[in-house]
Amino acid sequence: MTASRLLENINSPADLRRLDRKQLPQLATELRAFLIDSVSKTGGHLSSNLGTVELTIALHAVFNTPDDRLVWDVGHQCYAHKVLTGRREGMSGLRMHGGISGFPKRCESQYDTFGVGHSSTSISAALGMALAAKHKGEDRKSIAIIGDGAMSAGMAFEALNNAGVADADMLVILNDNEMSISPPVGALNNILTRLTSSKTYNVAREAGRHMLGFAPPLLELARRAEEHVKGMIAPGTLFEEFGFHYYGPIDGHDLDALIPTLENLKKLKGPKFLHVITKKGQGYKLAENDPILYHGVGKFAACDGIQSAKGPAKLTYTQVFGDWLCDMAKADSRLVGITPAMREGSGMVRFSAEHADRYYDVGIAEQHAVTFAAGLACEGLKPVVAIYSTFLQRGYDQLVHDVALQNLPVIFAVDRGGLVGADGPTHHGTFDLSFVTCIPNMVVMTPADEGECRKMLSTAYALDCPSMIRYPRGGGTGVVPEMNLDTLPVGKGEIRRRGKDVALLAFGSLVPAAVAAGVELDATVANMRFVKPIDAELIVELAGNHSLLVSIEENAVIGGAGSEVERVLAERGLTVPVLRLGLPDRFIDHGEQGQLLAELGLDKDGIVRAVRSHTTQQ
Amino acid sequence: MTASRLLENINSPADLRRLDRKQLPQLATELRAFLIDSVSKTGGHLSSNLGTVELTIALHAVFNTPDDRLVWDVGHQCYAHKVLTGRREGMSGLRMHGGISGFPKRCESQYDTFGVGHSSTSISAALGMALAAKHKGEDRKSIAIIGDGAMSAGMAFEALNNAGVADADMLVILNDNEMSISPPVGALNNILTRLTSSKTYNVAREAGRHMLGFAPPLLELARRAEEHVKGMIAPGTLFEEFGFHYYGPIDGHDLDALIPTLENLKKLKGPKFLHVITKKGQGYKLAENDPILYHGVGKFAACDGIQSAKGPAKLTYTQVFGDWLCDMAKADSRLVGITPAMREGSGMVRFSAEHADRYYDVGIAEQHAVTFAAGLACEGLKPVVAIYSTFLQRGYDQLVHDVALQNLPVIFAVDRGGLVGADGPTHHGTFDLSFVTCIPNMVVMTPADEGECRKMLSTAYALDCPSMIRYPRGGGTGVVPEMNLDTLPVGKGEIRRRGKDVALLAFGSLVPAAVAAGVELDATVANMRFVKPIDAELIVELAGNHSLLVSIEENAVIGGAGSEVERVLAERGLTVPVLRLGLPDRFIDHGEQGQLLAELGLDKDGIVRAVRSHTTQQ
Repeated sequence: MTASRLLENINSPADLRRLDRKQLPQLATELRAFLIDSVSKTGGHLSSNLGTVELTIALHAVFNTPDDRLVWDVGHQCYAHKVLTGRREGMSGLRMHGGISGFPKRCESQYDTFGVGHSSTSISAALGMALAAKHKGEDRKSIAIIGDGAMSAGMAFEALNNAGVADADMLVILNDNEMSISPPVGALNNILTRLTSSKTYNVAREAGRHMLGFAPPLLELARRAEEHVKGMIAPGTLFEEFGFHYYGPIDGHDLDALIPTLENLKKLKGPKFLHVITKKGQGYKLAENDPILYHGVGKFAACDGIQSAKGPAKLTYTQVFGDWLCDMAKADSRLVGITPAMREGSGMVRFSAEHADRYYDVGIAEQHAVTFAAGLACEGLKPVVAIYSTFLQRGYDQLVHDVALQNLPVIFAVDRGGLVGADGPTHHGTFDLSFVTCIPNMVVMTPADEGECRKMLSTAYALDCPSMIRYPRGGGTGVVPEMNLDTLPVGKGEIRRRGKDVALLAFGSLVPAAVAAGVELDATVANMRFVKPIDAELIVELAGNHSLLVSIEENAVIGGAGSEVERVLAERGLTVPVLRLGLPDRFIDHGEQGQLLAELGLDKDGIVRAVRSHTTQQ
Repeated sequence: MTASRLLENINSPADLRRLDRKQLPQLATELRAFLIDSVSKTGGHLSSNLGTVELTIALHAVFNTPDDRLVWDVGHQCYAHKVLTGRREGMSGLRMHGGISGFPKRCESQYDTFGVGHSSTSISAALGMALAAKHKGEDRKSIAIIGDGAMSAGMAFEALNNAGVADADMLVILNDNEMSISPPVGALNNILTRLTSSKTYNVAREAGRHMLGFAPPLLELARRAEEHVKGMIAPGTLFEEFGFHYYGPIDGHDLDALIPTLENLKKLKGPKFLHVITKKGQGYKLAENDPILYHGVGKFAACDGIQSAKGPAKLTYTQVFGDWLCDMAKADSRLVGITPAMREGSGMVRFSAEHADRYYDVGIAEQHAVTFAAGLACEGLKPVVAIYSTFLQRGYDQLVHDVALQNLPVIFAVDRGGLVGADGPTHHGTFDLSFVTCIPNMVVMTPADEGECRKMLSTAYALDCPSMIRYPRGGGTGVVPEMNLDTLPVGKGEIRRRGKDVALLAFGSLVPAAVAAGVELDATVANMRFVKPIDAELIVELAGNHSLLVSIEENAVIGGAGSEVERVLAERGLTVPVLRLGLPDRFIDHGEQGQLLAELGLDKDGIVRAVRSHTTQQ
């Protein structure tokens, strides 16, 4: 890596703004090299962040941050922003326990105006900030930088619809890298392609390249704005239909196009929309060639790139799901698979190739994904919706009304249940057992290992009602699933070991820790398997011959599986003491999964400690 | 009312299809008269349903229902559909306990292809049905009829984005009545107005009026479709940008325009979008003149119209909120009020007039409403989001991440918590305590009466964290609130009466029933006030001197307030028996609120019965 000269003296955007504009391309080069080096050592989101280097520099050069508000959508395009806002050294602890977050985070920096992890929130938030400035009579700018497929989510349109008439002084920048995480889908993508391939873009590109600083000139922008207001320009693009003044597309890697354009836009009032074309992975050939592989990476040698794993690693739950999906699809032609833009993350790459006609990537659109599945189920198909726990929150109303109320047999394969690690609180799946178990008609399962996960998927598939299988991120226990389509009895747990006095009732991912703790405590251990319907018979039996029941789950203790254990006991008038172990009533920061669980007392030692402490106190 | 002649012989759409087309205007007249008469006797949604009479007739005349699938968005535009599909007599029991639902309901009729209560789900569901037909090789049509502001919700755009490229044989009909429930808002409304006022519409209108059956001719439609495919027509409308073939606008009260158009569209493949203009309340002068007043009505004399109430009725909780909002806005200029298209229902009419600059109707857009509020709160304003419990489900992810994770002081005034009555399961607010209490940083309050509701709103306003005040639909206990802005101590309940053996721990709307039951049982009664933070001290005290604690709430027992009572006890190793009273684990049908509560054992008698039965058993 070349030694940085400019970058090492940039400790805030004010330092950047003191540079000569001619030095900024050099700064971009240094910044990009820094990011490749830094992310190769820590892991993190690479492709998206390489794509926003010049845009970030231009924004901080033109706008008076932090007084002007930058809202970075999706979150995983903000590394350059972090480096330029005093967190260059912090990057070595990126996404690590106690280190800086991989997403914008309000409590981390005054430059992080809005915490973003899920996509498509930036226009709503920036509109709020813009109208607040208006209310307070403050002259500050609000800029939403949206991209990576985030425009396909409905809430971005809800915000456009509101902003276009709200007389808000705001700028929306579409960072159009022709990608979400998976390849782009949907009609909107076609619209953007059409805009990009139009003559306008090519002209603007050339202008940017050759007319340093004069493209597009303010006069031209002002004229267009005025004509637009007068209705003399027919609404030519989707965004103009929504009441925004549309500018672009321009080349998002060309500072000589970006900076004058932003300076001009800064002077214009009203809702403005700037279309910027960038390339995911820009400047790092390996990432440019395979931006999906380099979207979220572990550590790697920057010069060699990501090497494929050497030996046979443990299967992840995601892979178990992906394999089951292909096998079940072969066995039953009614199966259709649905993903809201997470083909890779959800393990559906092979399914999408082998069963292209039954594979639906609906884009970042969780609400639609769920109701679309309900529509398919109405006609006798068997939709499997693969979705992360945290993203299921986006389709909650649709789960309640369109699926559960109509008792439609939609299968939810819920990945990333529990703590996900480095992505932190916006991606932890820590509430799903609480918000799903209260819904009538649902069956809710938590597999203790990979083999059980496969069996539960088959069990869900055989049901005539909605169901959810909730499994954690990453590798399991190392159990290799039997490659059949056998099912489990619904609503039945199993005793894993018999002990005395204390019974541990464990759910899903924490069963292994519970078994280990059970050995140390000589306690009975039950693998409960079902949160709903919960195995009441087993609970009553255990209550009858133990003096303490301990529920153990990787979900909020409030309203989680432990709450169901207590409800069963109360309903039967049983008053055996219950100790509820699970996630505490606070948001959990990012960090390595095992380390977080240990700190929260949800590993073997923590369980042993909690039980001993409880039995001593009583 | 004129005696029906045609209508009384229509027992299914097949009967309708046997009529001569020339008789259909007469049928429309009879159907409209029937609806006015019928709804005036039962109450229900009037304006929207009067607007869809001709459209419904045309759809059943042209399409082969139920084999072709009609999906009625919003739900409250389906009465004509109900009457024509064998439920004419059922209309006398509309929305009554045991009677037919006010919304489409799959288990009620094979013609109700999809249950709809919340808006904007129809395109997703119809797309699922269309693609299922394709998978199964079945030649059936799928038609979504969207309207009443439902296009502003993001999920409609998510569905358009997916459908426009899915090669689905489907028709989306926009029933554009220039209204949601409240007056229309947003950029989309401007787009529709522009389309409607264009020459095209006027020409189509005239053609429809005068060229009986030949407008627009198939040839012209086919030509446009072909040119569209070839890209020869520039995308002229928002909907064409999304890959739909756009037709219209046409007059939705003109059967001579509707029927030939639908017949032509039936023959075309691919995603089609038909823009139909209707008038809310069409054919009933009183409703035409005040469609908002006649949106959802009680019983009234059809000839006189709705009369204003005579005496001073009890305040509703909605009014208590509306008054508080105006008073607090006067006292604090930081307050802003936000509604997702429910100004009237949420009691914000006066606020919107008195504080127009601080009032935001964002359209049917709950996701945006919540994150927009978060953006405002970032800048030091105090946003109050008025939202129905059931619609809060639409903004769940935004509540978790954009508000609670960032610990922003947004106040959620959650109306319609608990059973709402005639609107039934899509509108009951029966899960909010479960899905909100598990979220860290939230304060959750349930007022026992109108006075407490006002105090809780002031309490929430004074907090520096997110909060929710959850109150029921309709009138309260008759308590007249003190017109100050006093607050309550956070996390503290109160003892309403002292008794022995049994303590009733009641939440919100069921406190009055609990007090009455307490008198009969000579039990202690606590008004718990806070679900979160729950009054642990009070619970421990009551556990110490009673042999049974009974939690009482109008929320799902699973994960509700009772679950928090048990968690407090378990955490402290207390093993006093708990009886959890609340809503059972099934969806509750429509019916009168009091009657439903009595059937579910949540009135005074039910509580007394449950306690006696429990104490006898033990």
